Amino acid sequence: NITSHDVSTEFSLNTPLIDILQSHHLDFYQPCGGQATCGKCLVRFSSGAPKISYFDRLFISPEELDSGYRLACKSVLDQSAVLELPAATDIQHLVVETGRVAAAVNPLIRTKRITVKKPDLESGKSDQDLLADACEIEQISAFILKKLPDILRTSNFKITILTAGNKILDIYPGSENPTVYGIALDIGSTTLVASLHDINAGKTLAVETAINPQTRYGDDLVSRLSFIIKYGDSQQKLTDVVISKLNDMISRLCHKAEISSEHVYALVASGNVVMTHLFLGVNPRYVGYAPFTPVFKEMRVEQASTLGVKIHPEAQVYVMPNIGGYVGGDIVSDILTAGFGTGNGKTRLLIDIGTNCEVVLEHKGKMYAASAPAGPALEGSCIRYGMRAEGGAIYDSDGLNSVRTISDRPARGICGSGLVHLIDALYSENYIDLSGRISLDRAFPADVLFAAAEIDNQRAIRIIDKFHGAERDLYLVQDDIREFQLARSAIVAAWKLLCRVSGCGPQNIDEIYIAGAFGNFIRPDAAIRLGLVPAKNLNHIHFIGNASLEGGRMTLLDRDVPDHVRKMAAEISFIEMAGRLEFQDLYIENMHFPPL
Amino acid sequence: NITSHDVSTEFSLNTPLIDILQSHHLDFYQPCGGQATCGKCLVRFSSGAPKISYFDRLFISPEELDSGYRLACKSVLDQSAVLELPAATDIQHLVVETGRVAAAVNPLIRTKRITVKKPDLESGKSDQDLLADACEIEQISAFILKKLPDILRTSNFKITILTAGNKILDIYPGSENPTVYGIALDIGSTTLVASLHDINAGKTLAVETAINPQTRYGDDLVSRLSFIIKYGDSQQKLTDVVISKLNDMISRLCHKAEISSEHVYALVASGNVVMTHLFLGVNPRYVGYAPFTPVFKEMRVEQASTLGVKIHPEAQVYVMPNIGGYVGGDIVSDILTAGFGTGNGKTRLLIDIGTNCEVVLEHKGKMYAASAPAGPALEGSCIRYGMRAEGGAIYDSDGLNSVRTISDRPARGICGSGLVHLIDALYSENYIDLSGRISLDRAFPADVLFAAAEIDNQRAIRIIDKFHGAERDLYLVQDDIREFQLARSAIVAAWKLLCRVSGCGPQNIDEIYIAGAFGNFIRPDAAIRLGLVPAKNLNHIHFIGNASLEGGRMTLLDRDVPDHVRKMAAEISFIEMAGRLEFQDLYIENMHFPPL
Repeated sequence: NITSHDVSTEFSLNTPLIDILQSHHLDFYQPCGGQATCGKCLVRFSSGAPKISYFDRLFISPEELDSGYRLACKSVLDQSAVLELPAATDIQHLVVETGRVAAAVNPLIRTKRITVKKPDLESGKSDQDLLADACEIEQISAFILKKLPDILRTSNFKITILTAGNKILDIYPGSENPTVYGIALDIGSTTLVASLHDINAGKTLAVETAINPQTRYGDDLVSRLSFIIKYGDSQQKLTDVVISKLNDMISRLCHKAEISSEHVYALVASGNVVMTHLFLGVNPRYVGYAPFTPVFKEMRVEQASTLGVKIHPEAQVYVMPNIGGYVGGDIVSDILTAGFGTGNGKTRLLIDIGTNCEVVLEHKGKMYAASAPAGPALEGSCIRYGMRAEGGAIYDSDGLNSVRTISDRPARGICGSGLVHLIDALYSENYIDLSGRISLDRAFPADVLFAAAEIDNQRAIRIIDKFHGAERDLYLVQDDIREFQLARSAIVAAWKLLCRVSGCGPQNIDEIYIAGAFGNFIRPDAAIRLGLVPAKNLNHIHFIGNASLEGGRMTLLDRDVPDHVRKMAAEISFIEMAGRLEFQDLYIENMHFPPL
Repeated sequence: NITSHDVSTEFSLNTPLIDILQSHHLDFYQPCGGQATCGKCLVRFSSGAPKISYFDRLFISPEELDSGYRLACKSVLDQSAVLELPAATDIQHLVVETGRVAAAVNPLIRTKRITVKKPDLESGKSDQDLLADACEIEQISAFILKKLPDILRTSNFKITILTAGNKILDIYPGSENPTVYGIALDIGSTTLVASLHDINAGKTLAVETAINPQTRYGDDLVSRLSFIIKYGDSQQKLTDVVISKLNDMISRLCHKAEISSEHVYALVASGNVVMTHLFLGVNPRYVGYAPFTPVFKEMRVEQASTLGVKIHPEAQVYVMPNIGGYVGGDIVSDILTAGFGTGNGKTRLLIDIGTNCEVVLEHKGKMYAASAPAGPALEGSCIRYGMRAEGGAIYDSDGLNSVRTISDRPARGICGSGLVHLIDALYSENYIDLSGRISLDRAFPADVLFAAAEIDNQRAIRIIDKFHGAERDLYLVQDDIREFQLARSAIVAAWKLLCRVSGCGPQNIDEIYIAGAFGNFIRPDAAIRLGLVPAKNLNHIHFIGNASLEGGRMTLLDRDVPDHVRKMAAEISFIEMAGRLEFQDLYIENMHFPPL
């Protein structure tokens, strides 16, 4: 519904609106220069208006605030939005989408038109020499040499070259303006997600998701490592299935977008240490034993054809670097997305919650990473009525009268976020005490969705799903809460240890980023109340979801990212928790919930 | 027949014996320090004794000289030889072979044992980091990463690495000492020759020859280029057949030597411009038109697996650089073999005789190259009774009573060298005059093998093969001599023009090298008499035969060769003859034979 005067753009989380407008050359009327002292830069959000700020209240009436007016100079976007701009500007509406960087101006693959000097008898130069002179690239592959003579001569020596760093990936006649596509790939242990991008326009064209076919060799990393160790050399099998599935996904992505996979010139993959090893056909077995040595940590850049990835044969496959131990490329994508290492002096904490919990802290320009075994409770395992986050899973509860299920289907079980929110709701109402014990001191009111119970001689709480008409009742048992406490304590001990190592008080953390599919579903108030994250204003907690894919996308759209990421990965101090007494102490100290 | 105290070695043409002995650490008794003033360094050649020098005569009796005694300090080997050494040395016999460099001490592929530091929790380094630290190579391929973790741990972190330049090709447990093989390949338009080498021992293990299967698409370069131009994209076919034939040859070489082709880590290919283009799958069609632009000239280094060459998958394939126009990598191998660019101030001339004749002159440290169309006469084409150099071809005649045929079979025709030698024999006896005309002034004696004749109204000379009992007589006709004159004049004009361009008088040329399969069969006295080469002492004419293969071999055995060759190819001034009036003038001026 965008008229011809409308513009659509994308931006990264928490970008000041004024930056977005300036990137579109909208010279906005700002008499005070953005100091919020004049109140002249009014815009109206028809949707997605940001939270009302102190400055907004100074200049804008409550009615206007309600209808979406804000000061442009102080608006920071935290969700998709549509803006109406003053009539004086060329653009009437601006549609912005969350979680996105501004349209790429610095794509990973560069498209350049060049004019090559024509050969002559005197200089005696070869086509390769002449191309090298024109583009200042010495190394030219045999792939290019095969096409070069005909393309030069049919296009009168005006050609378009596509380059990645110092490598020419392909050449076209100058009259052609090839669209350059890239793929971002998240190699999760359970799920593969791939997205297709037009990297010059900065547009996402399609997304595909698939179950990681390695699950047939083991549900989790540990069982897959066991499989590899048991059947020598079987890691190649795990590599083959994932590459083959990726090729399926690529062909579906290209089909959806109606493009040829031959025009995909780059793929950026993020995944944990084991997944990235297997992606490249490298045996990760020694990551499973002390001293947990990965075979590689650096960002790898491989040729697609060598890996068997069916895109352009000269395409480059970038694999996000590992930091160490269990802290892999997925976490590097997390901190890339969260803006770590951008040097603005902020203290940032990233928590990626999963069976293994990875934590990265940036404080005074230095970065520290650690990983802690949180166990599978937060993914719904080891919980009596636990299940994956699928239809019918209880995922939220914000009071004794609230039980929410995924897809609003009758409750079948409790997923990770459901566990957190149920415990939070019951702890808030004192039905669970500080030590995690289910309290039997007082009965539940008759009209709520919970009731005291006992299961197998354990204290328990019955959950009555009266809204969805579930056929059976579910129970939260004492052991479930204990499992959560163990997971929570591992996470808390990890970030507390990083605070200690870096000399940073938890109160000094400016921004907290929660990553991981699971993290996306936790309410920040619950996370703060249960002490999962350092207590602070809700506004400073950001959920960045599956940042693996976003990290890949950012890399495709900005060729400075690989060096930035390499630098971060090399500079981060990895703090090994295994066998560290301090960690054990913190782990035990943090078993209790914080006082309400 | 070498006893346990014997040593076999190889050396390059014209190497001082003393250098060979020193390379075997034979501290020879030389009281005068090699000044030839004491006569103490006597050795005895049981075969291959070099020419007797002035110094030999000063100290050695005529009887001793006859039985092979020479002064070691002044002996320069120009052929294969067997030496008896003084009893004081450890070695009793030294067998040396001509045309070879000394056993490689600097092989292209380096074998190195290294100890890698073991991983630990503190440093958190990956296997790749630890390997990079140990061998100071940053870039490590995925191929190596796949093997690395297991090999490190089964060999207690002591491993053997094979490197080419800054690339690790393979790794082995430290206890293994892999033999490293390399292949030299000559890609001739007609014939492919490949040799297999143990590059640490500097030994040639096997040689294979095959007809270039591209001949089915045209006998010569011009017809193959026409085929490519006629059937668009058909150059891939020509590439495929040559690679497939090469793989056959490789498998036969490896079978003969009883080794696995997986242990061949390098291949060095030489060929003319069209052949090297087709070898890499690059279309050479534009070499056929002015301005005769090749697609590439530089030395290319490709991965064997990318080319489809079935040796070690990470093996490097080196392709000798082209100089320009029709002067290709085969000529670079020629001048490499002939010692051009070694900076000893000599003036050298190389002539590679074929349908196209390439000439390179080195004078005062500068090099000049040219190519001239000699036509097919010297390969036996366009000659009435011409034929290839096969059994029954007349290849030599050194007087009116001499006609020699290949394999001593009854004469069937005249090959290129036969044409030269017949003309030389007849010109020497004045039956052909300075202008190339068959002289009818006097009759042949009755007892010689030649007689005046007339064929199709042309003057001719009948050749009577009475030794071999040929069934029919053959004739050399006037037109044959004209064809030779055209070919000869093109060659002479080419080197004379280079002399003129470089400011070098032909009398100043120190060494003349004649290359090409054909050149090998011409007697130097005939070449001088007919003015094919600048007149000079016979000793200064060297026949280096098929140097393409030798150039490849030298590269395998000396890792400094690629840079040397790149430097030469870049520095040589290519002098284009096409359309150059000076060349036309010289061409016409040199139609006559030089006066006897």
